Amino acid sequence: MGACQSFREMCDRTKNTNIRFSLPAVCVVWQSAMIILFGVFIRYDEEADAHWVEHRKANNISSDIENDFYFRYPSFQDVHVMIFVGFGFLMTFLRRYSFGGVGFNFLIAAFGLQWALLMQGWFHSLDYTDGKIKIGVESLINADFCVAGCLIAYGALLGKVSPVQLLVLTLFGITLYAVEEFIILDLIHARDAGGSMVIHTFGAYYGLSISWMLYRPNLDQSSSLQRSVYHSDVFAMIGTLFLWMFWPSFNSAIADHGDGQHRAAINTYLSLAATVLTTFAVSSLFQKHGKLDMVHIQNSTLAGGVAVGTAAEFMLMPYGSLIVGFCCGIVSTLGYIYLTPFLEKYLKIQDTCGIHNLHAMPGVIGGIVGAITAAAASETVYGHEGLINTFDFEGEFKYMVPTVQGGHQAGGLCVALCFGIGGGIFVGAILRLPIWGDPADDNCFDDEPYWEVPEDEESVPPMLQYNNHFPNKDVVESNFTVEQDARTRS
Amino acid sequence: MGACQSFREMCDRTKNTNIRFSLPAVCVVWQSAMIILFGVFIRYDEEADAHWVEHRKANNISSDIENDFYFRYPSFQDVHVMIFVGFGFLMTFLRRYSFGGVGFNFLIAAFGLQWALLMQGWFHSLDYTDGKIKIGVESLINADFCVAGCLIAYGALLGKVSPVQLLVLTLFGITLYAVEEFIILDLIHARDAGGSMVIHTFGAYYGLSISWMLYRPNLDQSSSLQRSVYHSDVFAMIGTLFLWMFWPSFNSAIADHGDGQHRAAINTYLSLAATVLTTFAVSSLFQKHGKLDMVHIQNSTLAGGVAVGTAAEFMLMPYGSLIVGFCCGIVSTLGYIYLTPFLEKYLKIQDTCGIHNLHAMPGVIGGIVGAITAAAASETVYGHEGLINTFDFEGEFKYMVPTVQGGHQAGGLCVALCFGIGGGIFVGAILRLPIWGDPADDNCFDDEPYWEVPEDEESVPPMLQYNNHFPNKDVVESNFTVEQDARTRS
Amino acid sequence: MGACQSFREMCDRTKNTNIRFSLPAVCVVWQSAMIILFGVFIRYDEEADAHWVEHRKANNISSDIENDFYFRYPSFQDVHVMIFVGFGFLMTFLRRYSFGGVGFNFLIAAFGLQWALLMQGWFHSLDYTDGKIKIGVESLINADFCVAGCLIAYGALLGKVSPVQLLVLTLFGITLYAVEEFIILDLIHARDAGGSMVIHTFGAYYGLSISWMLYRPNLDQSSSLQRSVYHSDVFAMIGTLFLWMFWPSFNSAIADHGDGQHRAAINTYLSLAATVLTTFAVSSLFQKHGKLDMVHIQNSTLAGGVAVGTAAEFMLMPYGSLIVGFCCGIVSTLGYIYLTPFLEKYLKIQDTCGIHNLHAMPGVIGGIVGAITAAAASETVYGHEGLINTFDFEGEFKYMVPTVQGGHQAGGLCVALCFGIGGGIFVGAILRLPIWGDPADDNCFDDEPYWEVPEDEESVPPMLQYNNHFPNKDVVESNFTVEQDARTRS
Repeated sequence: MGACQSFREMCDRTKNTNIRFSLPAVCVVWQSAMIILFGVFIRYDEEADAHWVEHRKANNISSDIENDFYFRYPSFQDVHVMIFVGFGFLMTFLRRYSFGGVGFNFLIAAFGLQWALLMQGWFHSLDYTDGKIKIGVESLINADFCVAGCLIAYGALLGKVSPVQLLVLTLFGITLYAVEEFIILDLIHARDAGGSMVIHTFGAYYGLSISWMLYRPNLDQSSSLQRSVYHSDVFAMIGTLFLWMFWPSFNSAIADHGDGQHRAAINTYLSLAATVLTTFAVSSLFQKHGKLDMVHIQNSTLAGGVAVGTAAEFMLMPYGSLIVGFCCGIVSTLGYIYLTPFLEKYLKIQDTCGIHNLHAMPGVIGGIVGAITAAAASETVYGHEGLINTFDFEGEFKYMVPTVQGGHQAGGLCVALCFGIGGGIFVGAILRLPIWGDPADDNCFDDEPYWEVPEDEESVPPMLQYNNHFPNKDVVESNFTVEQDARTRS
Repeated sequence: MGACQSFREMCDRTKNTNIRFSLPAVCVVWQSAMIILFGVFIRYDEEADAHWVEHRKANNISSDIENDFYFRYPSFQDVHVMIFVGFGFLMTFLRRYSFGGVGFNFLIAAFGLQWALLMQGWFHSLDYTDGKIKIGVESLINADFCVAGCLIAYGALLGKVSPVQLLVLTLFGITLYAVEEFIILDLIHARDAGGSMVIHTFGAYYGLSISWMLYRPNLDQSSSLQRSVYHSDVFAMIGTLFLWMFWPSFNSAIADHGDGQHRAAINTYLSLAATVLTTFAVSSLFQKHGKLDMVHIQNSTLAGGVAVGTAAEFMLMPYGSLIVGFCCGIVSTLGYIYLTPFLEKYLKIQDTCGIHNLHAMPGVIGGIVGAITAAAASETVYGHEGLINTFDFEGEFKYMVPTVQGGHQAGGLCVALCFGIGGGIFVGAILRLPIWGDPADDNCFDDEPYWEVPEDEESVPPMLQYNNHFPNKDVVESNFTVEQDARTRS
Repeated sequence: MGACQSFREMCDRTKNTNIRFSLPAVCVVWQSAMIILFGVFIRYDEEADAHWVEHRKANNISSDIENDFYFRYPSFQDVHVMIFVGFGFLMTFLRRYSFGGVGFNFLIAAFGLQWALLMQGWFHSLDYTDGKIKIGVESLINADFCVAGCLIAYGALLGKVSPVQLLVLTLFGITLYAVEEFIILDLIHARDAGGSMVIHTFGAYYGLSISWMLYRPNLDQSSSLQRSVYHSDVFAMIGTLFLWMFWPSFNSAIADHGDGQHRAAINTYLSLAATVLTTFAVSSLFQKHGKLDMVHIQNSTLAGGVAVGTAAEFMLMPYGSLIVGFCCGIVSTLGYIYLTPFLEKYLKIQDTCGIHNLHAMPGVIGGIVGAITAAAASETVYGHEGLINTFDFEGEFKYMVPTVQGGHQAGGLCVALCFGIGGGIFVGAILRLPIWGDPADDNCFDDEPYWEVPEDEESVPPMLQYNNHFPNKDVVESNFTVEQDARTRS
């Protein structure tokens, strides 16, 4: 076995993680393409354009405060925090992959949102009078949402891919997202304000399928690099809490003005609260001595937000939100305990962050809850105008009824699943090409291959750091030995 | 002494911190109760209900932007951050209790806000036409406020109680809060937008009384576990800063629309700024060599926000806010230097986070400042309508005058004190029962009893991690061995 | 060389870093002065005053939601987070200067904002009817902006100055800022909503000039204290991300209501996204093995926000923003690689955080971009009213045209440069006086002189911490020895 292992290591060593040319090339070329495409296609919408004053007067809008900016900008900023700090820090839990977790998250989100503005713009906000995409604050929120799908996928692959692979994953992920979103929201006419289907189900299955395609049979599961240290777990809690706190903004960010946003925030707030209690319960119950596991607290507490994504803007009722949260805390935590090892062992899906438990299952639950809530809607509960507004029964969907809407919702869920799995297999095949600079098995979950990692001199006691009079400087640098010498000598 | 110690240790060992059944049981049963009670009692208010469109038209509200959501949601999110990240990270300062600090804070806040919606709802927003509680964004803010009282109490007990005890503390704390709040705000008609009395005074004395009831005479004060490490102090600064920055939102969140919220934010901003300077001054002046103490910077800088809680919405004047902040920085820092050791030694009150200095004293000061400011109010300063709006001199309080209002404010402060102390003694007595799984003295301030703590390999210097050639593996450390084997064999 | 070094050390030892009297004296006296000046000068403006109800009715303002509070408060809170958490945590990257980074940032910001309210008030919002400064939420934002200039300057001096020096730097910095801001915005009539010139160019050259005056020729550049450790780099990413995410709020916070704020947010969002990609590209391309450098990721990714500060509210167009961001990522990262060492070696400017790359160059670029964009403005693009509103062509500037405005913008940039460099040399001369308690060369970049630093016991392996049975307790406390004994013995 020793020979076998050293052979494997040798093979791995031949893996080239040098991305000195590929990463800069991809970044610069793609960013240049963005500039050209933005120049050709993208302009401000009427609420962000300097012509707004005239537009306002022409439309009898009495005050600047009715600019959509004031309806949505606070929520946008909360969503922005979730994308960069929330997802970013949630991925810092590994002891030696915090740079990669938060740094690559930053990179792919910054690229993804530009590409998302274009892709979503072509499908949703193309102004046919002049062939331009008109963007405003709602476009920015949608771009952030779109990016979220790819960041979820990154969760499954954390520590096992190169930044170039991540950029490729993002390019295709955003493209697929924009298409499935168009099909689900516009063609099928499903509603999905918080993206249980469009974002979470799609993103999670996209990531899991790629992980399945990139299966690493020899990855050392007992490696200490796959575990956390005390402080990295605390860092990850920053991510968890910002996701948890701002999820009500996520689910309400693009809901209808007025009661739509208001209700979506309340439902999400309640669902998440319930999830926390059942997560703590299951985490303690299934652990030896009843000790809580940080992995569950960091992740499963968020499942309730995923699962009310679709139904948050509906009249789910406060107790309905609590029930959804209650169930998802249990399902998600049990997923970490039983399902993640099962997926790895039998289905060959390595899921670093456990996105199957945090996004895939709760996303599917969210789609189903949305379908049921939509099907059960009635004029008694929503009011005549309320029903039309909430489900957008206008234009070509004027004669739609709630029960049929429920079916459409279910259809949307299937589309998200198909795009996730199909797209993931396709993109996974591309990412298997041996040109992307991905790390060897032994270098997985380690920042070393892609980052200048500072030497950690904490272990040298302060006094030595400041007053050393050792003749041989090199020895002093190799920090421990000297101290030890000094002590054994004394 | 060695024998004595080992005897004590043996006794402690008999303490059972296994919460494998009690914690899950409490979480699941209470959460189920919440679902039932929410089902029976809680509905959306008219601004979050799908009937809003009709309501809006019937009431001649010209735009969706006048939905209370847009007045209060940004402040709500700031308050939410204070509760979960602010309080949570402020409690991560202990070297080995960061999981418990941020994690249990998370748990009890998530439970507390649900129970608070019910308790506050019964007292404040019960709709007598249908017997339902109607909730909106203001209810969510009030629930977060209510939770803050319990989190303050947790500060005194940090590291010395089990999560089950904390949930019991929260259940009773929320209940007491709702009652005292009803008495103070509705019956006595005191004003307390930022909760100097209702939240801080009550919460702090509630926690201190419980701590007095749970006094641990043999707690090793010299234990290194009661101190911080470098990084845990930096983590705690995250909590400090988010509390400090968002305190203007806290004090203005439920103030009157328009000038009320505006003024409350300005006053709090100024008071907090002044507190920072006097905290730094006193911290440096009373320390050997003038070195600053992180404990003061982390906590006392916040005292100014507590102390303008009541008066923030009044015409306290900018210089008035500065004066309050100036004094509180001094009082609070001196409290940490002189009062906390005194309380522990002579009054047998162990106060882990020093909430007496951060919440109790500034809260009482805030109540007094509020009473004086109210008594000094006049139509010259407030204007006729301004006076009525600010102090709500309407309905049965139509003939109230400022001087009398000042007396009512003082009365409110007394009620908060009584509920805090009385409630704390009562709940403390319950928590002394030997059934809650609290830790032994030796296990206090340690995450070990309730959390799966990752082994920390940081202590092994990098070169050893990869190239160690020590003959005796066990000494080098268990978790390493595997990796090492692999390498030496190859 | 050993003799030389020990002589230098001896000289340094004579440096007195004891600030036990100077720091408290400055804090208390200055804070008292603030209280008096606020008492004499500062009152609430009409939107924060209790007379608002009457004002609203008299001015036919239909709803409380049109109070400026609701237009600007969410942006204000984002800016507030940037000042305290953004700048604060960005400066925690040094391994042993995190307390000083985040703590002194806190201190000088809290003092600076008070002084800024006064200084800016005298120049901008003095009500000549009663001789009072009237403050509202926009004043708070402007005060935070003013503070940002001084915090940028602190970045160049990080780790090399005492808190008393920092307070002096802030006092003069705020004063200079208010004067140059008055000249640039009011006299020259340049526009600078995001402060590329007024904040960044001024602040950066102010700090660099002070650093040049305080040059320390013997500072040990190889000192490990000038480097980061793994966790301190992750802490710094908290600062980076909050600055990055909230920069759209920074540039739009005081822009015109409606389309002005909306457009400024979109432009900043896009520019920052482009910067991330080129920063990653250059960082990888110029590093051996293509490894990314955390210093670049932490800092250069922000350059795009600086550089659209002036032009963000103009019709820069989405692709224009991307181009600005694209260039600044490259310029800024190259600055870190080539210019910072050059500045230190040949110009004797020691720039700890590299503010020349993050603020100075992008600030100047921002000023130029602003001038060009303004000069290119036309009624076709802006509309008649849009042009007047955006550039404020009203009152005495009624007959201004865009091309001339471009010249004025360029003039503004020159003023900012002159004030920065001139002011910095002047203040630097004052700070060279040997009375401020600044640290010796050997104590630079170390929290030890000004903070009670907790002993770090992390190096003791967990098993020793909890089960030690060593006879000699003192030995156990001096953490390393035991572990080592165990090793050498075995």
